[in-house]
Amino acid sequence: MHFETFFRDRLDSLKDEGNYRVFHDLERKRGAFPRAMRHCGTGQRDVTVWCSNDYLGMGQHPKVIGAMHDALDRLGAGAGGTRNISGTTHAHVELEHELADLHGKEAALVFTSGYVSNWAALGTLASQIPGCIVFSDALNHASMIEGIRHSRAQKVIWKHNDLQDLEAKLAAAPADAPKLIAFESVYSMDGDIAPIKEICDIADRYGAMTYLDEVHAVGLYGPRGAGIAEREGLMDRLTVIEGTLGKAYGVVGGYIAASAALCDFVRSFSSGFIFTTALPPSVMAGAAASIRHLKSSQTERDLHQLRVQQLRDKLDAAGIPHMPNPSHIVPVMVGDPVKCKYISDLLLDDFGIYIQPINYPTVPKGTERLRITPSPVHSEADLDHLVASLGKLWAQCQLARLPMAAQ
Amino acid sequence: MHFETFFRDRLDSLKDEGNYRVFHDLERKRGAFPRAMRHCGTGQRDVTVWCSNDYLGMGQHPKVIGAMHDALDRLGAGAGGTRNISGTTHAHVELEHELADLHGKEAALVFTSGYVSNWAALGTLASQIPGCIVFSDALNHASMIEGIRHSRAQKVIWKHNDLQDLEAKLAAAPADAPKLIAFESVYSMDGDIAPIKEICDIADRYGAMTYLDEVHAVGLYGPRGAGIAEREGLMDRLTVIEGTLGKAYGVVGGYIAASAALCDFVRSFSSGFIFTTALPPSVMAGAAASIRHLKSSQTERDLHQLRVQQLRDKLDAAGIPHMPNPSHIVPVMVGDPVKCKYISDLLLDDFGIYIQPINYPTVPKGTERLRITPSPVHSEADLDHLVASLGKLWAQCQLARLPMAAQ
Ligand SMILES: Cc1ncc(COP(=O)(O)O)c(C=O)c1O
Ligand SMILES: Cc1ncc(COP(=O)(O)O)c(C=O)c1O
Repeated sequence: MHFETFFRDRLDSLKDEGNYRVFHDLERKRGAFPRAMRHCGTGQRDVTVWCSNDYLGMGQHPKVIGAMHDALDRLGAGAGGTRNISGTTHAHVELEHELADLHGKEAALVFTSGYVSNWAALGTLASQIPGCIVFSDALNHASMIEGIRHSRAQKVIWKHNDLQDLEAKLAAAPADAPKLIAFESVYSMDGDIAPIKEICDIADRYGAMTYLDEVHAVGLYGPRGAGIAEREGLMDRLTVIEGTLGKAYGVVGGYIAASAALCDFVRSFSSGFIFTTALPPSVMAGAAASIRHLKSSQTERDLHQLRVQQLRDKLDAAGIPHMPNPSHIVPVMVGDPVKCKYISDLLLDDFGIYIQPINYPTVPKGTERLRITPSPVHSEADLDHLVASLGKLWAQCQLARLPMAAQ
Repeated sequence: MHFETFFRDRLDSLKDEGNYRVFHDLERKRGAFPRAMRHCGTGQRDVTVWCSNDYLGMGQHPKVIGAMHDALDRLGAGAGGTRNISGTTHAHVELEHELADLHGKEAALVFTSGYVSNWAALGTLASQIPGCIVFSDALNHASMIEGIRHSRAQKVIWKHNDLQDLEAKLAAAPADAPKLIAFESVYSMDGDIAPIKEICDIADRYGAMTYLDEVHAVGLYGPRGAGIAEREGLMDRLTVIEGTLGKAYGVVGGYIAASAALCDFVRSFSSGFIFTTALPPSVMAGAAASIRHLKSSQTERDLHQLRVQQLRDKLDAAGIPHMPNPSHIVPVMVGDPVKCKYISDLLLDDFGIYIQPINYPTVPKGTERLRITPSPVHSEADLDHLVASLGKLWAQCQLARLPMAAQ
């Protein structure tokens, strides 16, 4: 077998389908974000980023940057080891306390990313609990899917956010089998929100554990920013709450919050937690500063929601179709990978607007979209420029507008 | 099923076996490392760290710290997105160039950790190449094992570093099946080194790809610190070289270096690469500074090897048994988890020396050890204090000394 030819052929197929990904080379400007400089073949250009998951701009918050500088100076660059072998720094311990407190749980455990936290925690729970059956929402994130797959436990997929289907599937399973329901609060690509209370009610009836991914909600919802479950007063009903430090909190890393015994169990048995270098203390300190700030400050969350509403209103006024949902994610649907990339390229080149096209495998084929994430650091003028630019492209590309689409 | 009871019972078994891990809460002191402050119930105590994988002390090198401060100020805290969706910063692009150059390869790809790089790259290659058979060294790291397991490809384990066994197993496989040989250069717990040239010769005979984990060698060996394959002039013979940014380079993150097509293939098809927030630009900048420094400076590598030799000589003089090997890892064998933890606790409490006991599952049961990693930041006085302390404990605990053991 000629391996190089094989790789090139597979890449060519991606290109033919319009699914080949081109990464844009960006240089964010601290203090000026969402402004960034884009490096490209022809030089450098200023762009406004409209697709970041630094949802609140915390990645440039002075408290976060300050905490990281301070930790760098006091503690150095890396942790220098796995958590077990010299890599548990005091900054990790403090952050884990902060996270347990955030979610009202006994304990928390930090992983190198949200991906690894889902993969490792679900993989460990589902493989180590004998006979465990995992009930997984059909639209769960890749990291949850891989964790469940990794466990080799029996997996039952229930229709996305469909309570009847979930209950029917739980009822069909052996009553005495250990059960784990895995789902998300805010689904990242459609922006819809799970009926957490009803899922917990069902879980109680069947004695199932609940595992909630709040990756796209932590920092953003609830009086202390702990997510949708906090906003709805449900945190104590969830067995595990999982989150990231890399999106609204603006740094990097992931975690679970749960009972002390569950966290200790995952800590003790999870390959993905044990056999890897711990995150740098400066990252831990930055994340803790971000969480602490967002525990008390509502300013960012209020302005975030305002900008989201303003964007929706302006898109409606311009007749540009977007998927309605109760969250901060504004998907403008295109439905074709080539067209989606084309619009994205024009936005970038002609209007200085960066919105990455979202194609397969991130979303199903045929649902390609521009996923817009307005933030408190976008101004109203930014919103107007964005909507006017989209309007011009919609005219130029003869894309359906809302009133037309509805006819 | 009562989940909490289940978790507690399993943790109790670990405790009974002596395999329950207690993480030490450390505060490294930048500029004074290997000195650190240990937080414990009773307060704080100064310790000298002897088990860090920050092998050269680069985690406190002024160039690394400086590059991270600078990147924080210019670019902010987090990357703000996955590599595809706004998370590719210019610092990532520059680091990937640096890594490709380091290993003399066309391209490189950065992952959130060395663990994820192994898991994702091996998982993707072995699952996507139809009919691929993976030939995996028996002592490969957990991250490689999980990646191969994840791929669901056929896996053939060959005896550790045993060329005859490898060749016999390759010969027994269908001649036309795509083959991948996965191994490490320096094995982290025993410190032995693979016969890379001979493995490549065998790979050539059977048309197999080679995948080499240089996690415990990058920065440390070779004229530019690219690892054992560089030292032996073999880099071009390996299909993939994998490394970490979290050990000798002193920061965090992992990577592969390979042909442009292979890297692009993994970039395009690997769930663990695609669906996760990119590492912060400051981490990328710190790692790049570390790599650049160690490309030209031999000082750290020379002093590292000197300290390793001095430690071995002093241990020999004191009759303390350690496993001989051709690398920088000095395993002092204890062979019992309870005794190993006991000695480690005494070293910490009575002598201010921190060496984490290494127990199952990191090493096989019965091979529990103190894994000592001397570094250029340890002084000769530190070495003397370490060996004198070990000597006292060896007397106190009536452990075998080398001349006695040999009788
Ligand atoms: C729902 C969901 N869970 C988990 C993750 C992974 O989190 P992280 O980016 O911290 O790896 C993501 C996105 O990256 C996500 O969208
Ligand atoms: C041989 C080997 N490969 C890979 C890894 C993982 O690298 P990282 O710590 O960067 O996740 C380790 C240790 O952690 C290792 O010992």
